[in-house]
Amino acid sequence: METILATYRVRARGAEAERRAETLLLEQTVELPREAVRDGFVLDEILPEVHAIADADEQHSLVTLAFPAVTSAFEIGQLVNVLFGNSSLQPDLALVDLALPLDLRVALGGPRFGIEGLRLICGRPAGPLTCTALKPMGLTPDALAALCATLARAGLDVIKDDHGLADHSFCPADARIRACTEAVARVADETGRSAVYAPNLLGGPRALAMQWGRARACGARAVLIAPMLVGLPVFHDLVHGEIDVPVLAHPALGGAAAIAPEVLLGRLFRAAGADAVIYPHHGGRFAYSPRTCGDLARLLREPWEPLASSMPTPAGGMSVERVPELVRFYGDDVMLLVGGSLFLAGDRLEERAEEFVRAAREAHGEARP
Amino acid sequence: METILATYRVRARGAEAERRAETLLLEQTVELPREAVRDGFVLDEILPEVHAIADADEQHSLVTLAFPAVTSAFEIGQLVNVLFGNSSLQPDLALVDLALPLDLRVALGGPRFGIEGLRLICGRPAGPLTCTALKPMGLTPDALAALCATLARAGLDVIKDDHGLADHSFCPADARIRACTEAVARVADETGRSAVYAPNLLGGPRALAMQWGRARACGARAVLIAPMLVGLPVFHDLVHGEIDVPVLAHPALGGAAAIAPEVLLGRLFRAAGADAVIYPHHGGRFAYSPRTCGDLARLLREPWEPLASSMPTPAGGMSVERVPELVRFYGDDVMLLVGGSLFLAGDRLEERAEEFVRAAREAHGEARP
Repeated sequence: METILATYRVRARGAEAERRAETLLLEQTVELPREAVRDGFVLDEILPEVHAIADADEQHSLVTLAFPAVTSAFEIGQLVNVLFGNSSLQPDLALVDLALPLDLRVALGGPRFGIEGLRLICGRPAGPLTCTALKPMGLTPDALAALCATLARAGLDVIKDDHGLADHSFCPADARIRACTEAVARVADETGRSAVYAPNLLGGPRALAMQWGRARACGARAVLIAPMLVGLPVFHDLVHGEIDVPVLAHPALGGAAAIAPEVLLGRLFRAAGADAVIYPHHGGRFAYSPRTCGDLARLLREPWEPLASSMPTPAGGMSVERVPELVRFYGDDVMLLVGGSLFLAGDRLEERAEEFVRAAREAHGEARP
Repeated sequence: METILATYRVRARGAEAERRAETLLLEQTVELPREAVRDGFVLDEILPEVHAIADADEQHSLVTLAFPAVTSAFEIGQLVNVLFGNSSLQPDLALVDLALPLDLRVALGGPRFGIEGLRLICGRPAGPLTCTALKPMGLTPDALAALCATLARAGLDVIKDDHGLADHSFCPADARIRACTEAVARVADETGRSAVYAPNLLGGPRALAMQWGRARACGARAVLIAPMLVGLPVFHDLVHGEIDVPVLAHPALGGAAAIAPEVLLGRLFRAAGADAVIYPHHGGRFAYSPRTCGDLARLLREPWEPLASSMPTPAGGMSVERVPELVRFYGDDVMLLVGGSLFLAGDRLEERAEEFVRAAREAHGEARP
């Protein structure tokens, strides 16, 4: 039987950890005491088994459960539900590791473009990709488009909307997407090199369809979506339905401790189809450790048949000065996202953005293989 | 200017808490250092102000920010994004309180039926409503329908699918919804009293539309949805779009500490339109305190113009024996959800369910005003 291996960190050891494992496997599937389960199929084909229990530290254990793959209904929403639906409400429990069997990976489909497709669309076959964010919320479509043009002229590969740019009265999504796609097209006519503008899509299914319709009509070559804001099943539906360009996944509302970033961003976002996954690099505004960042990059890039890779996109308070360090850390297959710190340059934004692009090109020369 | 008041618990005191407040208000809106914000409209109309900072305990403070309502784009996805998008990734921060201004409440719309509408549909103008869950995952549609009939005969007001019943190969949603709606209709013909069967809807927008289509065609009079699994914007779209029956909200994937249950379940689920909100009552399988449970009931029921009330639905390991205590605790306007413990009765399920219904009726007599 194909199984999903899910590892939970529980605050218990020894016999108490075994009891927690039993409680957890019941909670996440039948939601019944074991003695109330009378059906043979449920007992044989639905109830998870305890795969392993290991001590984590003096107070915690790692409990690995083997869920029959059928419990997931081979659908991303139910997968998350089975893995962590009710248990997310427990305060002393975290989902820290996840292995999905091949048939489930095939059903989910994963990224359609991946690192290779993203490079193709950016016209950048090697070296780190460069990315920045249009901001701040509050600017008009024209003001954002002017920034977009400046950044495109500087040679950025990808210019994404800040994830906070929604369908605001002072800056409607429709007008913003139109103005920014036109801006990158104009610069491409001047320079012969076209930046990829990725508009942020946010809202319910109707709003998403309208925003994507506008983006497609304007020739957008990538989009940004926060899977946890719109819902993982919507994200998955869009990626494997209407949207035919690469999708960058933003970690907003990705939660802190309850689902480990390795699982949510490294596994679930890739399985759902993100072509690039944005996450905070250590030493910025967020508290991810170097180890978590390294693990995320590995999980997004390593073979996971038949799923395409997903581009690691470290962000969250990065600066041009850190580009060489970032490229040493991640190697070549990375998209460097430097946002706010570029904007500190004020009227010198274009020069600063050019320095960013240059730093990425130079770091590529020094990058470890 | 209309503002949203959001209170965060931060691990800092004094000057450090002030610094955190500044970081937080920038992170959640402009995502820029303050000195990089040059636009007058952004400075005047977008940047939140610090409303209050209070000591919480020796290590923590409560920071209340006043966000201009326009930052939310008057849309539930962007509202959550602005409140907690990036900051959800911080480990030592929680969103613990929320006040929404009137214009935002009007825009969101809230529950369409509320407690009153739910009572009307159940034909139960006073006293606690009784609710149970069809389970476990793994049963066939016919087996679930047989359970549904048994529970309907016992006089339950609402019989909801377990939230783990998805569109499984061994129990397709379509067949399950059809079999269970037919079962309650047959029992209604026998007994003259019709239980409300609430099928669980789960998946991407296409799957949700198909499942709701089946439910409507079969005459389902309520549905169950987990807003965090499908995405709050999808939930909101469905409630204020296609779905014309009461919607019960399930807390799956509601997270542990990062967003306080008072905010997520008490405020956001109600604002998004849940007619009943299911949450774990204290002393069951989850760790909510009596105070949290009392606060949740208050938040769901108290006047919050122009929004309808939402029915508090305590659950999570409740038993028939606890019905009198639950009714003393919550009073009359409550839906009691007893699930797994009924199923321990095995072949005596119907009698046990009848005892539950009787206990609720009797407790109503004793209920505090």
